[in-house]
Amino acid sequence: MARVRFLPFEVEIETLDGETVLHAAMRAGVHINASCGGAGVCNKCRVFVEEGRARGESLPEGGYKACTLVPETDLVVRVPVESHLDRRALLRAPKRRATAWLAAEARAREIPFEPSVKRHYLELPPPDLSDNLPDLRRLKRGLKEVLGQEPEVEWSLLSELPYRLRQENFRVTVTLYDHPERSAPVVQRVHPGKATESLAVAVDVGTTTLCAELVDLSSGEVLAETSDYNPQISYGEDVISRIEFARREGGLKTLAQKVRERVAGLIEELGQKTGRETEEIDLVVLSGNTVMTHLFLALEPRFLRETPYVPVAAFFPPVPARELGLPTAEGAVAEFSPCVASYVGGDIVSGVVATGFFEEDPLTLFIDIGTNGEIVVGNRDFLACAACSAGPAFEGGGIKHGMRATVGAIEAVHLDTETYEPMILTIGGRKPKGLCGSGIIALLSQLFLTGLIDRSGKFRRDLDHPRVREGRDGWEYVLVWAEDSATGEDIVFTEADIDNLIRAKGAMFAGYQTLLESVGLSVEAVERVILAGNFGSYLDLEQAITIGLLPDLPRDRFFFVGNSSLLGARLMALSRQMREKAAEVARMMTHFELSAHPGYMDYYMSALFLPHTNIELFPSVKEKLED
Amino acid sequence: MARVRFLPFEVEIETLDGETVLHAAMRAGVHINASCGGAGVCNKCRVFVEEGRARGESLPEGGYKACTLVPETDLVVRVPVESHLDRRALLRAPKRRATAWLAAEARAREIPFEPSVKRHYLELPPPDLSDNLPDLRRLKRGLKEVLGQEPEVEWSLLSELPYRLRQENFRVTVTLYDHPERSAPVVQRVHPGKATESLAVAVDVGTTTLCAELVDLSSGEVLAETSDYNPQISYGEDVISRIEFARREGGLKTLAQKVRERVAGLIEELGQKTGRETEEIDLVVLSGNTVMTHLFLALEPRFLRETPYVPVAAFFPPVPARELGLPTAEGAVAEFSPCVASYVGGDIVSGVVATGFFEEDPLTLFIDIGTNGEIVVGNRDFLACAACSAGPAFEGGGIKHGMRATVGAIEAVHLDTETYEPMILTIGGRKPKGLCGSGIIALLSQLFLTGLIDRSGKFRRDLDHPRVREGRDGWEYVLVWAEDSATGEDIVFTEADIDNLIRAKGAMFAGYQTLLESVGLSVEAVERVILAGNFGSYLDLEQAITIGLLPDLPRDRFFFVGNSSLLGARLMALSRQMREKAAEVARMMTHFELSAHPGYMDYYMSALFLPHTNIELFPSVKEKLED
Repeated sequence: MARVRFLPFEVEIETLDGETVLHAAMRAGVHINASCGGAGVCNKCRVFVEEGRARGESLPEGGYKACTLVPETDLVVRVPVESHLDRRALLRAPKRRATAWLAAEARAREIPFEPSVKRHYLELPPPDLSDNLPDLRRLKRGLKEVLGQEPEVEWSLLSELPYRLRQENFRVTVTLYDHPERSAPVVQRVHPGKATESLAVAVDVGTTTLCAELVDLSSGEVLAETSDYNPQISYGEDVISRIEFARREGGLKTLAQKVRERVAGLIEELGQKTGRETEEIDLVVLSGNTVMTHLFLALEPRFLRETPYVPVAAFFPPVPARELGLPTAEGAVAEFSPCVASYVGGDIVSGVVATGFFEEDPLTLFIDIGTNGEIVVGNRDFLACAACSAGPAFEGGGIKHGMRATVGAIEAVHLDTETYEPMILTIGGRKPKGLCGSGIIALLSQLFLTGLIDRSGKFRRDLDHPRVREGRDGWEYVLVWAEDSATGEDIVFTEADIDNLIRAKGAMFAGYQTLLESVGLSVEAVERVILAGNFGSYLDLEQAITIGLLPDLPRDRFFFVGNSSLLGARLMALSRQMREKAAEVARMMTHFELSAHPGYMDYYMSALFLPHTNIELFPSVKEKLED
Repeated sequence: MARVRFLPFEVEIETLDGETVLHAAMRAGVHINASCGGAGVCNKCRVFVEEGRARGESLPEGGYKACTLVPETDLVVRVPVESHLDRRALLRAPKRRATAWLAAEARAREIPFEPSVKRHYLELPPPDLSDNLPDLRRLKRGLKEVLGQEPEVEWSLLSELPYRLRQENFRVTVTLYDHPERSAPVVQRVHPGKATESLAVAVDVGTTTLCAELVDLSSGEVLAETSDYNPQISYGEDVISRIEFARREGGLKTLAQKVRERVAGLIEELGQKTGRETEEIDLVVLSGNTVMTHLFLALEPRFLRETPYVPVAAFFPPVPARELGLPTAEGAVAEFSPCVASYVGGDIVSGVVATGFFEEDPLTLFIDIGTNGEIVVGNRDFLACAACSAGPAFEGGGIKHGMRATVGAIEAVHLDTETYEPMILTIGGRKPKGLCGSGIIALLSQLFLTGLIDRSGKFRRDLDHPRVREGRDGWEYVLVWAEDSATGEDIVFTEADIDNLIRAKGAMFAGYQTLLESVGLSVEAVERVILAGNFGSYLDLEQAITIGLLPDLPRDRFFFVGNSSLLGARLMALSRQMREKAAEVARMMTHFELSAHPGYMDYYMSALFLPHTNIELFPSVKEKLED
């Protein structure tokens, strides 16, 4: 990791591994014009290396393309005037601080380590005439010596039992499962001889993305991880359209099958990555929102959507993993993180478990921004949750050139305050295709701060600038000209897009207010904000506060936690106490139906401004605007 | 029921419904010559009706065939001298008394009536916005109000749950099952609206015969019963040959499938007989010996036969009845009576439960005479059991003209003490085909009492009688001449047959002695003998004592109990306490391996005489012989 100092601004930043100078500049708040998102084609991001060594593409007129330049040592880089053209680019940069990551991973090492599955190696005495107990009783007797109680054995194990016992002369490895609803452990499998230790798989079943980890249940170590899109996307991008698809003939079955197959594929992949057999996997813990869990289990989702929004179940009984088509050991079970309500799912419960704030003092606001922004507020004394119908805007849905956070998506934007020229970065450093969530928030924030839009989200009509124009869909800002875009057409951001975003962030903010009011608190009382979800980790805190998506609290109260749903699933796999805690969290969490709250609509209407009708709620934004 | 008085003997008997005079005479100990078993063809059983009215075939020379004659009123019947020719025929008759039936049926009305399955009709409040719990939770909440605890619901019920609940607007009938190894009841089925009460089926899975009863679990009433052969007979008549067959490729599967299919057929039949749907059946309780239970469940039986004789299981977990192909309600379970050891099975445990002697004071000897004679001794303080390798002789196996107790089998025999002419009765009154168990015992007893064989079972060599001759297989008695038999050949009883029978009864008697000695008791200490099994109920007590098969105890200590295995299965269906008692009995019962007892062989050798080497053990037989 090298340090890069940007001249003339005298701003320094530590670069990330393999990070380009352009990318580092964006993080440091240094504006460098860049139109192609880092694809190396617009040639606008010229910088000069004054000290140190770096590799990258040089430009014919001298200097390097910042989007290709990677430090080999500490660097001093000069940004020429034509590359930034923004005196004020750095005015606020020193105020920024990197948002802290919550040390949630550490929990995985602190929790009581006692998985709900366990393999026991037994050397049973072979039968003789003086001890000719039945095979099943011999097995139970041997297990009772170890466990202090007799386990339950289901009839399906009996047909193989005599062969399994005799194959290695009554030396066997028995996998036991601690069934959450039964008093005695259940024998999952009897394996001849000595078997390896158990593995588990934790899976986050996201509406968009599936993430899976292979966990060693003897050490607690994560052996490998992998992820892929949820293939249900082909049948609907959001939960509502999937619920609709499920109503078609065979639709539910198709959706279930697709996601199960893909998770099965991920599990195979984890095996291949580590050279471990899927036969070693005794447990799969899955965490997903209520709709995803219903679809995975092929449970009717339609009543989730129709008033009064009733799930088939919120606590799901364990399922034999092979019945779901998951490649695992014989008898392995799949467990699902418990849900709270139709729109507050097992992913949130899992996230709360992962962060552990339900066992701590500080009043915490836990936010998962997605299609349905879920929020939880509470501490060791109480937990309240709600779902905000934020809509898919923050995932690029309903936005003219919105897209998912894939290669070519603009994920960071900075506008020059004088020229209104953009600096953009794309995922993968390819030519831009559209805007993903973080890019959308950044652009909205920049348009607002540069004064290109007013507090109601309308463009300045008086400005004669080629990028601000009246297009086919009304007023818009041209972020990327056709010549620089991957699509061959202008990438624009319209007033309609802005309206959608304001409604979405308004729904979130009104959600915090309503939920907090429901428990007798105000936003200022929040001592900690935890931002969860994959999206959360890309979020630029300042920008999110600027547009009023997040409350304007001291920045050191904010923490990122990444994929807390996946981490929670892992914790549940590692510890049955965590599984019990998840159940406790789900039971303890009071769900508030926001739309039923009499004040909600007022809060919502007041939030339909940038950052808010009541600017006093956003003192730091007020200050920026007054600069 | 009419009374018949036989002249010149002045013996009276009450006839059974539809019973012929010949049959009644046999029961009354009145000898009437009869060679065709009651088929009405030998014309030897002439009697005259002196008073009263009767119908039957008359003979040309006057009088009626006793084998066709059925009383319409009380009768006085004279047996002419040519029809009995036995002055002594009745000498012992007045001493006889009908052996009592144990009032085991009454237990079915006395036991605590609480089946392990129960249907609950619930009217759940339909969800609304103020109460939008998940379907599963709503169901559990409703059940908790009724049960005081939450039941377990397996995941397989979830996919149908929302439709079942909504079909009759949240009015449902829930079937709950009290799983023997779980603390909470398990939901078996959720049925829309109000369903009928539960039915259960009790099945005795005999090696030869399958018997089934349909029981109403709300009233405890038996609605219908039926029986048929165990179709596994085609693959081996006894358990050993079936174990052998099971070793063939696909053999075990075939045996399991055959018996399951036949039991399924019997259940269908019970439904048809009563006009009830098999959908109403929530529970099937099966009781069979250890081998039969293994074969029914397709569990490897070979280790039952090989030393050290180890069953796969003796306590069997409940099995979803439909997985066994049994036509029942969705979710219905099949339970199996617990076994004790390889050759002391669930039928015996079930029998002990049915008779209830394990809860009473008198020292009781419980005997089930079959291929493997099982014996239990004990009372409320202890239970000890053993299996005697009696072999199949008492079921007609290994006997030259032995056969199962089916139509045409000679089931009763009396010999004239002077002429040695036989009086025989066949099942169904058809021409005789061979001898079944009770016929074999009767014939052996008669040959011995008439002096045709000596105490070692050898025929008198000095007698010039056409019926006692040296045949191809050595000395033999001709019971039926070819002209009177259904097979067209002589039906004979050989010294080899007698040897087999003596070994078989010797094994039983040595079994009682050894088992009683093992618990520090002698045969004389036995206060009650219960004779179980279908075979037991046909047994003639005097004859069985005469040959030394049963101990020579006061006759009022003997009780028949009929199919106690089936009755026990019914009790277990009616009461989970009875199911628990069966488990207690199986656990409490000490199993003795007779062959391992040092004294067994001596007892056995001493028992290889008629009735025994030590005649003092059989004082009543000694007295008869001295007559």
